[in-house]
Amino acid sequence: MTVPQVYVGPVAEPAAVEAVRRGGGEVVASPREATAIAWLDWRPEHRPALVAALHPGIAWVQLPTAGIESWLADGVIDDARTWTNASHAFAPAVAEHALALTLAGCRRLAQAARARTWDEAIQGTTLRGATVAVVGAGAIGRALIAMLAPLGAEAIAVTRRGRPVDGARETVAAGALASVWPRADVVVLCAPATAQTRRLVGAEALAAMRDHAWLVNVGRGALVDTDALVRALDAGRIAGAALDVVDPEPLPDGHPLWTHPRALLTPHVASPRAVEAATLAELIGENVARLAAGREPLGVIDPARGY
Amino acid sequence: MTVPQVYVGPVAEPAAVEAVRRGGGEVVASPREATAIAWLDWRPEHRPALVAALHPGIAWVQLPTAGIESWLADGVIDDARTWTNASHAFAPAVAEHALALTLAGCRRLAQAARARTWDEAIQGTTLRGATVAVVGAGAIGRALIAMLAPLGAEAIAVTRRGRPVDGARETVAAGALASVWPRADVVVLCAPATAQTRRLVGAEALAAMRDHAWLVNVGRGALVDTDALVRALDAGRIAGAALDVVDPEPLPDGHPLWTHPRALLTPHVASPRAVEAATLAELIGENVARLAAGREPLGVIDPARGY
Repeated sequence: MTVPQVYVGPVAEPAAVEAVRRGGGEVVASPREATAIAWLDWRPEHRPALVAALHPGIAWVQLPTAGIESWLADGVIDDARTWTNASHAFAPAVAEHALALTLAGCRRLAQAARARTWDEAIQGTTLRGATVAVVGAGAIGRALIAMLAPLGAEAIAVTRRGRPVDGARETVAAGALASVWPRADVVVLCAPATAQTRRLVGAEALAAMRDHAWLVNVGRGALVDTDALVRALDAGRIAGAALDVVDPEPLPDGHPLWTHPRALLTPHVASPRAVEAATLAELIGENVARLAAGREPLGVIDPARGY
Repeated sequence: MTVPQVYVGPVAEPAAVEAVRRGGGEVVASPREATAIAWLDWRPEHRPALVAALHPGIAWVQLPTAGIESWLADGVIDDARTWTNASHAFAPAVAEHALALTLAGCRRLAQAARARTWDEAIQGTTLRGATVAVVGAGAIGRALIAMLAPLGAEAIAVTRRGRPVDGARETVAAGALASVWPRADVVVLCAPATAQTRRLVGAEALAAMRDHAWLVNVGRGALVDTDALVRALDAGRIAGAALDVVDPEPLPDGHPLWTHPRALLTPHVASPRAVEAATLAELIGENVARLAAGREPLGVIDPARGY
């Protein structure tokens, strides 16, 4: 058992420092002395400092975000060491937001929030007996599937390879997604943004979805063709869309989705800031402990796969 | 085992007729031949017909609503036979709506639905680690408690007598409610309307609640002092209120709750009409089967208790 020497940067936030120690690591003041880095800042302008801190002795880097496509695009992530994303930290909160948006859609809560008169025609539907397609069954998708069970909803998990997912009625490989659209009452996107998932939901998928279906996106805006979605909503092709992420992001003022009666938007807040530092620190502590014990950390990134 | 002879009124809806037969009962064309009545219509104007149909041979009447205070007030319910409410039929859907409103509150979805610009200050909180007071732990409250578990929220159940409730961290007797208000992050009302529960949440309770707390009501509007609630919301005394039932109901146009930034209203639709007939029929079938087997039906009303 080796004691990980962890540099916490760009600023040594107390929660993360404490988590490293709780996990059995030592916190070092300079990357030069480090065997691992816990990087807490998602902003691109800080990334050159991370790249400069890397050296052959750094065996592991924890990144602070669930989606890591921009770190790949920026050339931060290399093949010389293990990199981990923060999906496991944010999964419970993001899955909860996905459930909130799913229920808000089915229960017509956006329409209710905008109403100014008692209108019993604002009738929702129940998730009981509904089929929810969970597209992307990583940490977030799996957490969501567990939340759906006591509601009596059944999940179809969609994963890259279609390997069975705990709690899902069935799992479908991404290549067979066309067979899923017509069977889902709700489609929840919690997949990473990669070349393969870009505009996964476009005109074709929207045309194949059930007319009472809701589309929920807590993954990445790029998964959806926004213009095609607006056309589908205008035509009443699907019941509605509840989106925490959108393309472009931020959505510009005056965009038709802001006022669309079938749309509900939240501003990329599925993981509330109030709990983010604490949950990220929790993951850092867990991964330091895994590293110290010679086990694989949670959220290992495969650069070739893109997430 | 006696075969219940069931009159289905005021109109013999096919789903209910089929359910009686599935439950092992026989459907009779006139109340005179009946030993039981399944009453499908909630409207007051039909109640004299129900009262006229009663005779000493009627051992059981199934009512079509969860809340039965108006049937008591109308003098429909007597002590001469077993009466059952429909709580068990609507519990899953109403609990799901309570969860939808709870999540919508914590996640600031009403504010998001009204936004016209990307505003990351619309930050919610998570239910993970939160304490949810479930006031009234009948069929609805119990269903809700089961739904909260995978979200990592803990429930304090409040019941008349404080007897332990499955899945709740603790159960508190209604008489000790004052100790609950300051400990709850969310208060969900799913209690019946009785003389004891009338305006349970008034100025005092609202003053005792945490300033980040949400009040959710899927029980009865009469449980809340609406004027006191509006004052508490105006003062930012609590974070917000998400209400499916309200006093007065329907809420008149122009009422301050319609446009209050801390309020979200749904028009008494927790049990969606689209599924109501089917779920009521399911309960009728179950209760006919219980009656045929000499077992107690679900949802027995205690007129003295008031629910």
